[in-house]
Amino acid sequence: MDRAGAIASFDALAAHAVEEDANCQWRIARRPVGNVEPEDFEWRVTDIPEPGEGEVLLKTLYLGLAPVMRFYMQGTARTGDAGLEIGDVIHGRGVAQVVKSRHPGWREGEIVQGQMGWQTWKVSAMTAQEKFFRMPKNGLPAALGAGVLGMTGLSAHAGFFACGDPKPEDRMVLSGAAGGVGSMVAQMAAKVVGCDVVGMAGGPEKCDFIRSLGCSEAIDYRSEDIPGRLDALRPDGIDLYFDNVGGETLEAVLERLRMHARVVLCGSISEYTRDEPFALPNYTRLRATDSVMRGFFVYNHLDRWDAVMEEMAGWITDGRLKPVQDIEQGFAAMPRALARLYHGGNVGVQCCSVRGEPEEWL
Amino acid sequence: MDRAGAIASFDALAAHAVEEDANCQWRIARRPVGNVEPEDFEWRVTDIPEPGEGEVLLKTLYLGLAPVMRFYMQGTARTGDAGLEIGDVIHGRGVAQVVKSRHPGWREGEIVQGQMGWQTWKVSAMTAQEKFFRMPKNGLPAALGAGVLGMTGLSAHAGFFACGDPKPEDRMVLSGAAGGVGSMVAQMAAKVVGCDVVGMAGGPEKCDFIRSLGCSEAIDYRSEDIPGRLDALRPDGIDLYFDNVGGETLEAVLERLRMHARVVLCGSISEYTRDEPFALPNYTRLRATDSVMRGFFVYNHLDRWDAVMEEMAGWITDGRLKPVQDIEQGFAAMPRALARLYHGGNVGVQCCSVRGEPEEWL
Repeated sequence: MDRAGAIASFDALAAHAVEEDANCQWRIARRPVGNVEPEDFEWRVTDIPEPGEGEVLLKTLYLGLAPVMRFYMQGTARTGDAGLEIGDVIHGRGVAQVVKSRHPGWREGEIVQGQMGWQTWKVSAMTAQEKFFRMPKNGLPAALGAGVLGMTGLSAHAGFFACGDPKPEDRMVLSGAAGGVGSMVAQMAAKVVGCDVVGMAGGPEKCDFIRSLGCSEAIDYRSEDIPGRLDALRPDGIDLYFDNVGGETLEAVLERLRMHARVVLCGSISEYTRDEPFALPNYTRLRATDSVMRGFFVYNHLDRWDAVMEEMAGWITDGRLKPVQDIEQGFAAMPRALARLYHGGNVGVQCCSVRGEPEEWL
Repeated sequence: MDRAGAIASFDALAAHAVEEDANCQWRIARRPVGNVEPEDFEWRVTDIPEPGEGEVLLKTLYLGLAPVMRFYMQGTARTGDAGLEIGDVIHGRGVAQVVKSRHPGWREGEIVQGQMGWQTWKVSAMTAQEKFFRMPKNGLPAALGAGVLGMTGLSAHAGFFACGDPKPEDRMVLSGAAGGVGSMVAQMAAKVVGCDVVGMAGGPEKCDFIRSLGCSEAIDYRSEDIPGRLDALRPDGIDLYFDNVGGETLEAVLERLRMHARVVLCGSISEYTRDEPFALPNYTRLRATDSVMRGFFVYNHLDRWDAVMEEMAGWITDGRLKPVQDIEQGFAAMPRALARLYHGGNVGVQCCSVRGEPEEWL
């Protein structure tokens, strides 16, 4: 019962109804050029699959959204995931419940998180490549597994602690501070480590928001002159920069590094929709300041998953880390939720409640 | 008895005679634009200064030359040294003998190395800023203090070991392999650590030379296609890149990094005479490969001076590190020796024997 849906606009896409007795999917209709367009997505309804021997049937509860997904759709993602072709279900991690199990390692009823893809059901052999983890029974909302206590959280934790090597005395700058990773790094920096954090975000509301997360100052990148504001707020320079945006903001920060500074390259969302890659004209500032610029690839930190999740759950419980998830209601809204990311529409971790149900608690 | 010399060409400059009863100096006549020109240098002859209380009189024996010196002359060096003005004696480290001492810490006859400037005599209070070190009595030529066992050697050692974190299994690439720092890194990599080193140098003679230092393969950057040769010689990618040249070579290497690679930014001589800084279009490869790009500032490694020099002297003695110094004869040839650096004229560490005397041994 394959049916291709008509596509008009993101709102029209979001009007699709999830059918409970079918598997609804979002597939790649066309390679995105620049930002994603409604025509890039194809709505497909198929049968709910049956698990074979050694497999489980998973019911998707929540899906996370991340800027990297445009690269999945373009087939250019340089990640550990396999490249996607036109017609493939879009990659995406989420939280799911094991509904049927013919796999000895997984029991019916368990809540897991892993590579679900943009679909409401999945049959899986739970291979290592899908990176499924059991959600711990920590009394927290299951939706957190689609972001704050999922791959977004691991990115924030590994990027900040393992790559940034933060110290309480660091004069820190954080771009994309209101976004998924950024909103977590802001809190871990200000409230767990005790750094002084200058955050950047787009618009006065988001600037208020990041101050509420612990940033001592906020720079509104949409209306303010970033180099001038950095001069004013960081007159002695910058020890630690956590970069979610790349481009001219990275250039401005490199110009203001202190000796022995650390730059963590987490994302470069300001560059994702450029035709030409941004070329960094002052990378040699690393030499003049004895500094390090470190890229990181979150999949290389998977071996610490359980310890990182337990630590972050502890900070959520003791109040130092407020989980901020921006939850779209309904699986049909996934394309719109993805497009919002590139326009800075989200506050915190963008995710989606597949059926718009009340929250599930662990 | 100040006398300004006439300036015609580098060879004419080199015809100046060092007067033994006077202090001969090279000063900045003009800020260099692009490469240095003969007109940028002023020959000055003054009286030999007299040391006051707490000072010593130093007689210059050897001076080192390094690409950074053009920046000193331009007043744009971003280093720990004070900026120079037109008319100032050019900065430069060298080996000298204490001829008179009114300083309790230094005895007459001692051989030292430190900030001498481009001059044949100097009175000094031996301040911390001049970074003078005693030359150890290790039976090696004193001239090595102007390079291999001087700041060039510290740069090579600190950049390679402390910043590059080399491992025997590293698939390494080294640019500027025939130069001062490069010729030392090539040997330490191949003969001390045991890495497989692909070196780059300009011209067939230099390529033969770097193979003699231990490089398993050599790329002639003047006649060969660097990306194509890297593909052929490093089909599995690059673990460690020690960069002396910057520019498109750095870009080509970043495109071929393996996971967890390390890039050490030591120099960017290919960029020094550009009008516009080179902009690095693929710095985000660091993110895709979980890699680190580390700049280093040699003055931050001065606290390890004695240990590093002792270790390198040991490698010289046991034959693993062949000291390669390209020695100009005569102080008057300093400007020509500097100009040669930017044209790749030197092999090994460029330095100058002030009076063209026979070698002094420690």
